[in-house]
Amino acid sequence: MLLLNLDHVALAVRDLDEALDRFARLYGVTAASREVVASEGVEEAMILVGGSQVQLLAPLSPDSPVARFLERRGEGIHHLAFAVPDLDAALAHLAAEGAELVDAEPRRGGGGSRIAFVHPRTFGGTLTELVEST
Amino acid sequence: MLLLNLDHVALAVRDLDEALDRFARLYGVTAASREVVASEGVEEAMILVGGSQVQLLAPLSPDSPVARFLERRGEGIHHLAFAVPDLDAALAHLAAEGAELVDAEPRRGGGGSRIAFVHPRTFGGTLTELVEST
Repeated sequence: MLLLNLDHVALAVRDLDEALDRFARLYGVTAASREVVASEGVEEAMILVGGSQVQLLAPLSPDSPVARFLERRGEGIHHLAFAVPDLDAALAHLAAEGAELVDAEPRRGGGGSRIAFVHPRTFGGTLTELVEST
Repeated sequence: MLLLNLDHVALAVRDLDEALDRFARLYGVTAASREVVASEGVEEAMILVGGSQVQLLAPLSPDSPVARFLERRGEGIHHLAFAVPDLDAALAHLAAEGAELVDAEPRRGGGGSRIAFVHPRTFGGTLTELVEST
């Protein structure tokens, strides 16, 4: 199995508008897209930095997983997402190698993508998302 | 000021050899380079994932900053590094905007690069490195 690319780095933030204002002022970067993903309990904004993507995640409600992350850890990196050519094959390989999967089966992410999360213990303490490239 | 690109994502790990073995086995990725940076108290390995770089940082001694990070937080993302065209101009802009700088002046990083760190409070809770592109 081969990772194709780093798809995005996701930061959890408390207030999406405030965070976007701050990043525009400090770094001259703005959101290329913005989307509510109700199934995840988040509003997401994607910022393009050269060929890379930084995703900002803000909770829609106090009981969403991102709200709990913010309560526990404060603002910071929530996950890294890597693109893979074949998500089913990647999950089968990881399971065979004894990796801990959050999602044993692919599910739907933002923009209709197929995604699955891998437990932080598997990738150097970092929650990892695999996104099937389209 | 404009960020050019995400230069690398750095993960703090306890044992560089063990981490490289694990990532090769799980994800089919290997180190493109490896370097002891004594001034930072770390051994670094750079893994290429498509056009992106994942850096693994392991402490050289128990009193290095990365060792203290591991003690406090465990393995996980240590910092994000963005490439900038002009590091002096970037630091001047950030200081004028009231950002908290770890390094008010550029210093030398791995491979002889010019770098400076920006406090986590400035970029969504994440320690940020700016690397001058060459």
